[in-house]
Amino acid sequence: MTVQDEWRDGDRVAGDWGTSRLRLFHLRGDAVMRTVTGPGIAAVMGAPGEALIETLAPWFETGLPRDAEVALCGMVGSRNGIAEVPYAECPASLDVWRLEAHAVAVGGLRVVIAPGLACTRNDGAADVMRGEETQIFGLLSLYPALARGRHVIALPGTHGKWAEVVDGRVVRFRTFLTGELFALLRDQSTLTRAGADDSGGEDGFVAGLERSDAGGLLGSLFEARAAQLREGRSRGWAVGFLSGLTIGHEVREGLAGADREGTVMLVGDPVLTALYTQALARHGRAAETCDGSVAARAGLRMLGERP
Amino acid sequence: MTVQDEWRDGDRVAGDWGTSRLRLFHLRGDAVMRTVTGPGIAAVMGAPGEALIETLAPWFETGLPRDAEVALCGMVGSRNGIAEVPYAECPASLDVWRLEAHAVAVGGLRVVIAPGLACTRNDGAADVMRGEETQIFGLLSLYPALARGRHVIALPGTHGKWAEVVDGRVVRFRTFLTGELFALLRDQSTLTRAGADDSGGEDGFVAGLERSDAGGLLGSLFEARAAQLREGRSRGWAVGFLSGLTIGHEVREGLAGADREGTVMLVGDPVLTALYTQALARHGRAAETCDGSVAARAGLRMLGERP
Repeated sequence: MTVQDEWRDGDRVAGDWGTSRLRLFHLRGDAVMRTVTGPGIAAVMGAPGEALIETLAPWFETGLPRDAEVALCGMVGSRNGIAEVPYAECPASLDVWRLEAHAVAVGGLRVVIAPGLACTRNDGAADVMRGEETQIFGLLSLYPALARGRHVIALPGTHGKWAEVVDGRVVRFRTFLTGELFALLRDQSTLTRAGADDSGGEDGFVAGLERSDAGGLLGSLFEARAAQLREGRSRGWAVGFLSGLTIGHEVREGLAGADREGTVMLVGDPVLTALYTQALARHGRAAETCDGSVAARAGLRMLGERP
Repeated sequence: MTVQDEWRDGDRVAGDWGTSRLRLFHLRGDAVMRTVTGPGIAAVMGAPGEALIETLAPWFETGLPRDAEVALCGMVGSRNGIAEVPYAECPASLDVWRLEAHAVAVGGLRVVIAPGLACTRNDGAADVMRGEETQIFGLLSLYPALARGRHVIALPGTHGKWAEVVDGRVVRFRTFLTGELFALLRDQSTLTRAGADDSGGEDGFVAGLERSDAGGLLGSLFEARAAQLREGRSRGWAVGFLSGLTIGHEVREGLAGADREGTVMLVGDPVLTALYTQALARHGRAAETCDGSVAARAGLRMLGERP
């Protein structure tokens, strides 16, 4: 046990519990003292509350009080989580979002679970998010200038979100299946099976971005395979092509629903936001990036505070 | 053994051997006397030629000569098939296609294997087909009017093809991943897991078609899930929505690369071509349909004949 592992008054536990992973932070002010990971909501056997306590076990041994408060966001608030927390309706402000959080007792812990957000898109379709709203509100606290005026915030990922934020409220958003679709195409489709060589990914990415400039997605995907059969491209090139093609299409579609000018805020994994920055540059759009876990922690800190 | 099972002089064996299935026809003139199915090229253990002879075993017992000719199209001509037959380059006529077929000995059989077609699309990308060209040339023989002038022929399926045929030659084509993508989304994605009720598929199909009229594909897929979570839609509705959305996008993209007017010829499974007819009607486009196996047999008959 190091000194930094000790629990002190004023320290907090907060975490993001998504479908595929639980990630908990021991926070002291803005600093992350420790992190620990556990099973995603989809992988939990038995009660999620018990899995939470098991994951925290090493921290209890170093002084985490049994009646501590734990702030959580993500799928932990879905019907398969600890408690189903209804979505907050858009337009949603930070205060509404915090007021609609649920506090539940798990063992002796006080677990505060963030609501997700729901909206009705301009085309009448329903859309939902769970977890990304915490990053959005965290981002607004880190960049106060974003809390005034109109901004486009994109959160790339498995289910990427493009949100429109006006004067600090999330007005509406749209989900893009980009990450999940890319993984399906890479791992389960016939498109990447023609070769074994994993090099050439970067060239493929650029080729995919270029192809996304014109033509539809459905009629462009098969090129990943045809280029291996006819043009000697590697499997790695094909995977890169699919990444560039899908990201390029997401950016095209996302910008079509956004303002014609202005910087796009990208929140997420730094490797991913760098790829989106590249795609946005092709459209002449500037991007600023924020690490998604930094934004999530900032949001989780506010979740624990009463408005 | 029935009388119809007997082999007579002038009878033929022809078949379509794709990735997932071998289908052989005993033909007498235009009539199908018998069919037998075997493993697809991807499922064959050992040499494909041996699998062919095993599949034909019952027919040898009823008089099929050991030195008969068997005309085959599809993935049997790929590197994993009986023999790799190079693609014929577009623009490709019936005569060129037949001349580039390969005849190989399998046991005592004379197996004639069709070449696929390759083209370079207008956007510079490579594209390929193996098997669909047999249906296209078969269709042209069944509908002689299609062998003059310019026509759009769409062959929906796992890897759907939209081909442009001018004066009987396949000038170029584009592959749409619609069928494979739909199956991945239905069976492997998170989009259809929220419910169990399989009803509502037809309503979902129409809703998906409507959604394809505007907006991009990547930003519309997630509605299949959100509508289950927020609007009480069934799993069946979600599957229908994904079918309508993907078919609607294929038709939009396919028509964008085609003439502004004229009937689209649809070749394929009758259930599938009916769905595409519905999608084309939304764009004010008439469709004529031809059963894909009828077109394939017509093409295979010509493959066996010398030009």
